[in-house]
Amino acid sequence: MQSLKLTPSPVTPTIDLDKTGVQHGFLRLPYSRDDSAWGSVMIPIAVIRNGTGPTALLTGGNHGDEYEGPIALFDLARSLNVHQVSGTVIIVPAMNYPAFCAGTRTSPIDKGNMNRSYPGRPDGTITQKIADYFTRELLPRADVVLDFHSGGKTLDFVPFAAAHILSDKEQEARGFEAVKAFSAPWSMRMLEIDAVGMYDTTVEEMGKVFVTTELGGGGTARAETVTIAKRGATNLLRHAGILAGKIEHRETRWLDMPSGDCFSFAEDDGLIETMIDLGEPVSAGRVIARIHSIGRTDAAPAEIRAKLTGLLAARHFPGLVKSGDCVAVVGTIQSA
Amino acid sequence: MQSLKLTPSPVTPTIDLDKTGVQHGFLRLPYSRDDSAWGSVMIPIAVIRNGTGPTALLTGGNHGDEYEGPIALFDLARSLNVHQVSGTVIIVPAMNYPAFCAGTRTSPIDKGNMNRSYPGRPDGTITQKIADYFTRELLPRADVVLDFHSGGKTLDFVPFAAAHILSDKEQEARGFEAVKAFSAPWSMRMLEIDAVGMYDTTVEEMGKVFVTTELGGGGTARAETVTIAKRGATNLLRHAGILAGKIEHRETRWLDMPSGDCFSFAEDDGLIETMIDLGEPVSAGRVIARIHSIGRTDAAPAEIRAKLTGLLAARHFPGLVKSGDCVAVVGTIQSA
Amino acid sequence: MQSLKLTPSPVTPTIDLDKTGVQHGFLRLPYSRDDSAWGSVMIPIAVIRNGTGPTALLTGGNHGDEYEGPIALFDLARSLNVHQVSGTVIIVPAMNYPAFCAGTRTSPIDKGNMNRSYPGRPDGTITQKIADYFTRELLPRADVVLDFHSGGKTLDFVPFAAAHILSDKEQEARGFEAVKAFSAPWSMRMLEIDAVGMYDTTVEEMGKVFVTTELGGGGTARAETVTIAKRGATNLLRHAGILAGKIEHRETRWLDMPSGDCFSFAEDDGLIETMIDLGEPVSAGRVIARIHSIGRTDAAPAEIRAKLTGLLAARHFPGLVKSGDCVAVVGTIQSA
Amino acid sequence: MQSLKLTPSPVTPTIDLDKTGVQHGFLRLPYSRDDSAWGSVMIPIAVIRNGTGPTALLTGGNHGDEYEGPIALFDLARSLNVHQVSGTVIIVPAMNYPAFCAGTRTSPIDKGNMNRSYPGRPDGTITQKIADYFTRELLPRADVVLDFHSGGKTLDFVPFAAAHILSDKEQEARGFEAVKAFSAPWSMRMLEIDAVGMYDTTVEEMGKVFVTTELGGGGTARAETVTIAKRGATNLLRHAGILAGKIEHRETRWLDMPSGDCFSFAEDDGLIETMIDLGEPVSAGRVIARIHSIGRTDAAPAEIRAKLTGLLAARHFPGLVKSGDCVAVVGTIQSA
Amino acid sequence: MQSLKLTPSPVTPTIDLDKTGVQHGFLRLPYSRDDSAWGSVMIPIAVIRNGTGPTALLTGGNHGDEYEGPIALFDLARSLNVHQVSGTVIIVPAMNYPAFCAGTRTSPIDKGNMNRSYPGRPDGTITQKIADYFTRELLPRADVVLDFHSGGKTLDFVPFAAAHILSDKEQEARGFEAVKAFSAPWSMRMLEIDAVGMYDTTVEEMGKVFVTTELGGGGTARAETVTIAKRGATNLLRHAGILAGKIEHRETRWLDMPSGDCFSFAEDDGLIETMIDLGEPVSAGRVIARIHSIGRTDAAPAEIRAKLTGLLAARHFPGLVKSGDCVAVVGTIQSA
Amino acid sequence: MQSLKLTPSPVTPTIDLDKTGVQHGFLRLPYSRDDSAWGSVMIPIAVIRNGTGPTALLTGGNHGDEYEGPIALFDLARSLNVHQVSGTVIIVPAMNYPAFCAGTRTSPIDKGNMNRSYPGRPDGTITQKIADYFTRELLPRADVVLDFHSGGKTLDFVPFAAAHILSDKEQEARGFEAVKAFSAPWSMRMLEIDAVGMYDTTVEEMGKVFVTTELGGGGTARAETVTIAKRGATNLLRHAGILAGKIEHRETRWLDMPSGDCFSFAEDDGLIETMIDLGEPVSAGRVIARIHSIGRTDAAPAEIRAKLTGLLAARHFPGLVKSGDCVAVVGTIQSA
Repeated sequence: MQSLKLTPSPVTPTIDLDKTGVQHGFLRLPYSRDDSAWGSVMIPIAVIRNGTGPTALLTGGNHGDEYEGPIALFDLARSLNVHQVSGTVIIVPAMNYPAFCAGTRTSPIDKGNMNRSYPGRPDGTITQKIADYFTRELLPRADVVLDFHSGGKTLDFVPFAAAHILSDKEQEARGFEAVKAFSAPWSMRMLEIDAVGMYDTTVEEMGKVFVTTELGGGGTARAETVTIAKRGATNLLRHAGILAGKIEHRETRWLDMPSGDCFSFAEDDGLIETMIDLGEPVSAGRVIARIHSIGRTDAAPAEIRAKLTGLLAARHFPGLVKSGDCVAVVGTIQSA
Repeated sequence: MQSLKLTPSPVTPTIDLDKTGVQHGFLRLPYSRDDSAWGSVMIPIAVIRNGTGPTALLTGGNHGDEYEGPIALFDLARSLNVHQVSGTVIIVPAMNYPAFCAGTRTSPIDKGNMNRSYPGRPDGTITQKIADYFTRELLPRADVVLDFHSGGKTLDFVPFAAAHILSDKEQEARGFEAVKAFSAPWSMRMLEIDAVGMYDTTVEEMGKVFVTTELGGGGTARAETVTIAKRGATNLLRHAGILAGKIEHRETRWLDMPSGDCFSFAEDDGLIETMIDLGEPVSAGRVIARIHSIGRTDAAPAEIRAKLTGLLAARHFPGLVKSGDCVAVVGTIQSA
Repeated sequence: MQSLKLTPSPVTPTIDLDKTGVQHGFLRLPYSRDDSAWGSVMIPIAVIRNGTGPTALLTGGNHGDEYEGPIALFDLARSLNVHQVSGTVIIVPAMNYPAFCAGTRTSPIDKGNMNRSYPGRPDGTITQKIADYFTRELLPRADVVLDFHSGGKTLDFVPFAAAHILSDKEQEARGFEAVKAFSAPWSMRMLEIDAVGMYDTTVEEMGKVFVTTELGGGGTARAETVTIAKRGATNLLRHAGILAGKIEHRETRWLDMPSGDCFSFAEDDGLIETMIDLGEPVSAGRVIARIHSIGRTDAAPAEIRAKLTGLLAARHFPGLVKSGDCVAVVGTIQSA
Repeated sequence: MQSLKLTPSPVTPTIDLDKTGVQHGFLRLPYSRDDSAWGSVMIPIAVIRNGTGPTALLTGGNHGDEYEGPIALFDLARSLNVHQVSGTVIIVPAMNYPAFCAGTRTSPIDKGNMNRSYPGRPDGTITQKIADYFTRELLPRADVVLDFHSGGKTLDFVPFAAAHILSDKEQEARGFEAVKAFSAPWSMRMLEIDAVGMYDTTVEEMGKVFVTTELGGGGTARAETVTIAKRGATNLLRHAGILAGKIEHRETRWLDMPSGDCFSFAEDDGLIETMIDLGEPVSAGRVIARIHSIGRTDAAPAEIRAKLTGLLAARHFPGLVKSGDCVAVVGTIQSA
Repeated sequence: MQSLKLTPSPVTPTIDLDKTGVQHGFLRLPYSRDDSAWGSVMIPIAVIRNGTGPTALLTGGNHGDEYEGPIALFDLARSLNVHQVSGTVIIVPAMNYPAFCAGTRTSPIDKGNMNRSYPGRPDGTITQKIADYFTRELLPRADVVLDFHSGGKTLDFVPFAAAHILSDKEQEARGFEAVKAFSAPWSMRMLEIDAVGMYDTTVEEMGKVFVTTELGGGGTARAETVTIAKRGATNLLRHAGILAGKIEHRETRWLDMPSGDCFSFAEDDGLIETMIDLGEPVSAGRVIARIHSIGRTDAAPAEIRAKLTGLLAARHFPGLVKSGDCVAVVGTIQSA
Repeated sequence: MQSLKLTPSPVTPTIDLDKTGVQHGFLRLPYSRDDSAWGSVMIPIAVIRNGTGPTALLTGGNHGDEYEGPIALFDLARSLNVHQVSGTVIIVPAMNYPAFCAGTRTSPIDKGNMNRSYPGRPDGTITQKIADYFTRELLPRADVVLDFHSGGKTLDFVPFAAAHILSDKEQEARGFEAVKAFSAPWSMRMLEIDAVGMYDTTVEEMGKVFVTTELGGGGTARAETVTIAKRGATNLLRHAGILAGKIEHRETRWLDMPSGDCFSFAEDDGLIETMIDLGEPVSAGRVIARIHSIGRTDAAPAEIRAKLTGLLAARHFPGLVKSGDCVAVVGTIQSA
């Protein structure tokens, strides 16, 4: 593993990442393929640097079908003025760029789930090569890291920002402070159980302040959720001292997912009828979804009942569901 | 053309459509193909008949990725008791059944857009054969026809029921009465300009009362919109005298789409940012959507401005947009 | 329609179809496409002509996944000596050649089911253009026509030869004589109900003697069924007086499919268990197949019962079955 | 047929085609599909109009993988100054726009070969709808029509401009004059035998002057052939009196394809070795191509011999060839 | 490698595998993908436990297109009564469940050949994760293991049960005793040469009694071969003392595949004519198959000759064959 | 890693590689898949051996869409007479045979880029297994190795032969001598910077004389470039002393690619217009290519300028280009 680290990344940035001023360019990653022998993946990147302040790394498109982050970040990258900035803002609006262009969660090239491909490999798949470049080149430059997520085409969430429960309580506290500054309608303290290959963990193990989000879903973005994303990014840069101005605070409610009982899975294929809408209260034992058989008009639907009392925090989005899909997530309200 | 009408339909129902009682079965349509030489399309159908009252034909899944109708109708078909009914209810929850099973707007077999395949042909494509069976076998039995639509995977609508402006003013009035009985949050008087191949027109030309809907979209169904669909179907059956009981009225607002200026189309590919949400007011000239280039971080977005004052009645749903896509529909408020 | 008949066929044979001797060549049909702007479909054809005797047209590959016919005919075409022949033998071992090369029932180019594409069109799809060439160029030359079929990849049959019940009883009698000469283990008198677009009907309407077969299935050919095909073709040419030598008679049993009750269709998807094998006796009411749900281990299988007493003449071949598939055909024994 | 002509075209131009000045816009053709319920095909168009002179209609991308025309026309459309023009220049750089975007000969939507889809239908496929719009809206405006072709991905040609031999000898003479003005290295007098569905014939039957080209191939464009295309378009506009300035004449040689013997077709699949290069002399009987079997190293290649003496005017481009592909075209030199 | 073993399996059973009684449920394996961000593979499993007797693990669908095993096991799982059992029966009717649902040999997700994916990896592909769960969770519970195979869609076998020749002669003897108890028409002593990644080897290295089968093929199941599978499974459970009752013995013949000379491979593409049927005798040097060229009617077929004297034990199933396919396997008769 | 080397290759040659005389056969590599459970990849190979002279290994089809090498080598393999040879010639005309059959750069089976898959793995992907066989079985037999390349479907080159700059100057000199003997129009001394996984490096590290080429491109072969390939192979065998006769010398010019500034990459999608043709002179700063937007007729093209003075040595071939594609390579002229 150690020797891998010595292999240089195949990525070449078309801009000087450490130069003062505003730069727009690409991370160019060679990708030889049937329809372009000497082709490349070109990942848009912007760097706005002014003086010696802290560095924020802002990313969207970790999953390619989640849109609030990319909209907020393409907008921010284009409109940030170098004189507004004290320090450095690195913006990659679409981290898994091949997935983003295809409008899919994973990469159409290698089916790579970017968020499970960390720390990456310089001689791996395209997705792993991008991860490796972040791990070895971009993350070491950063002090604060914001990674935007939403539910994508197949899930929908109440909009929240989140940070992880960490063993380093001082680092943890800085994360929750940053979440509070982000000011999403909901906030979450997440306990990561299965952290294998996650970007989050890679960032946190480097000691950075890390904020992530879930801001809606369904493979679309609403004006309301885009506003949350834009305000959150600006608030976070202000919180970090990179942008001047006062944080625009909004009321937030703290949410928890205490155990595996939050999650309900389908055991049948069919047409899903979610019985309540996102954010509505749920009591344990209540039918939260039904799955109608589509093969006949006289089959009784399968019923899925809540195992906890709380509110509907996330749900399966498409009208059809397959056995094994997560159909609903019940969150519990944290005492602030 | 006349001779075509004499060709028998290849569809065989597995139930007797005219028998009293509750029957659940299939419309079996032979479909010979590589993976089944003697295969068939099996379209679920339920008929609930009691006495000599009027006949209602209720359909969903005219487009295969619209879910409020199928959920309401699979549920209704299974739960309707023959003793509740005076007359006949024919329910086909998924008219374009191959499309519905695939979760796509059009048929995966022949790319047929069911709603543009009427009156159909007995020797045509699979989609045309289904249309022909409705035209020649099911519609002649009906007095009242309800066809559920939603926006599907690529559009989202404020929820409304609608009937058409017709030259036969008595028929038109009966249609609007039925819409009022449906009691969706929004109601619309539609002037159909391009009626080529439509189910609606086929039904109306037979002199039937016809109600259609748009009840959301995005390829999902929310509890709220499913409730509208269920209440609307029951209300309509009560209005027709087939179900006993009082119509459950809800306040509705009447909406209009007066001209082609309602519609805005993209002239660029990119990442779409809709600037306001469905149902919100719009004034003419306002930027209602922006299209961000995804190829670079420094390109200014294209702006799309409203041509009318009203409210946002529908919008493009997916996060990515292509040149030529309808990005927004502005509706105007009708004076009641 | 009449004017269409005047449009010349786009097919060009690379050999002179009316020349004496043995000729091997192609029917070349231009087919412009993305991967060959000036490409063609090249259908192998052999013509063996000697003197002024009758003409037989022998075809296989009408459906592209049926193999006894093509094996027997490629073999016969290569090995027939001109001196053996009195008259003309035209052999097209693979009529729907694109389907045959792909190993599929229908054409991969246009999904055309050749056996339902007659009489064809010179300006239609590739499949219709081939049909038109047979209708206008090859069939008029023929006195006797043999078209080989088997069950293909999705059906399996007890091996039989067949001719149709016709209104012209003299023509009908000549057909049954030819079937008897073919000497398959089973023989059938078929009553065609749905003859739309069939090759059979096109041939018979020209007054030709027509024999067809079903010689097994599953997308394979066994040595035993290939032997039946080879013997049958030679017997038929002897019967027609084109080949010298005595017909090699074999015992045959006459089979009937008297009504739609012969056919059983699945109403569920699943794993099919056919309870008896081809050729075994069936009594009405007996479970002939069960469909096991593959989604759970505790679901009772759907049972399919015979509606007639007879024997299992054909069955669904693949292990998985879809709702609407024909799962079994019960034939009845004819009194000779 | 007559009644079809009364059906309005579904195409809406986003610009006023008859306004004076320079206009850039789209022909918007609604195209409802699974990934965009209310989507459209947007075909770029430019109109440059000044005064009452003649009208030229210039098109490329009739086949989507032919590039000299689109390069010359995108360039011309952008750079033409209204003051240079006397009359009107209508430019559609990519007629079969869906094919052009996909880089394929035919449309990825409906496999339509645009050049065989005329006169089109307003209620047909997307390709037929585009053809219909040209037939009914654009062509009636034109006096001179230039349609650029090249060999596409699967053929390669010596570069030539061409006009057809016509029964109206005065119209024919105007065509050849226009070809001469175009000044390609080679020029051709074409006798169209199979004119079914061609754009060429549709244009000529309206009495217009029509010039077409073949300017290379292989799915690429060389600087040399692009120069021929640009010069030819400008020369033609000068010849028509729409652009001022002197025609830039170049020497041209007149070429002929006198009969079907010009064309050689493969009767085997394999690896093709063309024995001479484009433009080189050929004598009848010479091996012009060999097809090597790729299945074994010891199989002798099939040899294809020229049937005429002349020069190699066109050839199969890809390294692999299929039975039925046109492998070579021998042209003969016309006496001027 | 050792450390991998400590990574927990991502599979969660929905039932308690060690509880007494009859349980039907799933092995749930998370599988995040474009069409379900939080989806899972749900592998049906049944456990019937009563008392402290031995444990049998019965599996089918190791390859997804082999059907005798799954039919016998879905049937057995549903119908086994807890009171019949002394010990434990674990039934997984479709081990490579994604392949089984797709009707393919390998997994449609990762192209994994389950039978070559052992011992598996908890962090590998979906197929490897399933293998790992069997290796670490299910196999350690088992005393006797039966894994059903057939020829699948592309091979056909005479029906046999088999065990391996092992270095541990006592274990080997127990295997052959179990094969004898199974009582298939044919039995085989197999010498595994290439055991890389095999389930068989993984099971045997744990010291378990292991029986496998080949019970037909072609991607179908006949009533006769299903009967063999059902009787074999019941016999084996009786032999193991888990089910009461007497073993239903049938005559079996012992077959051998002594060397690589048993196998014949195609060196050409084409139409295959197998000259004898399964189970028929073969003498060395005899033509057992011919491959007809499908490109021409005059090409002599390639002949494939037997290298050994014995009987035809297996053959290529589809009508078309490709160079490199195994076309025939000659088995030799063992002296009992 | 060491232990892997002990795993035997799964490849079986059908001929004895070390036998005297001419042998034509296959490298058979088992490849179990859905459409052939016991299928294989069959790679054609010829060995011509006479006496004890040196051994040359000649290969084409390392990338499957490059044709000069395969044409020259299928031709040479078939026509080489054993009496002409002193030593051994091993010819594999299509190393990545699955890619060659598909006409694609990489393998359709595993997307393997053969030239980046060395030294390979006996238990890896199909592409890696082929590489492993070359590394462990064929290369150890060779003294001189010639591997033919061309530009493939997406690049085009001026025709050259090349050898690498090596640390072993004696080996390097032997390479350049061999290049000179090859006598292509251009010759190159290549400095490999990124040698990860290359065949070239694997060969050179074994101390062999290695020559490679780029002989055109576009996925075709011209008579002229095939002649270069044939002459080069013969010349090299003469140079090695394996064939008798005098080397047929041709003038060659030495070319260099001194730095990354040789390469220009697209930063936009669009229609590419290369402003000069292959082999033409370029001066630094000149526009060598323009990329036209295909979305509108009024967008200015992006310009790509040369960074060095030299000549156009290679270019992007297809008419459409994607951001990240290499559009042009400028080579510099070496002082001889």
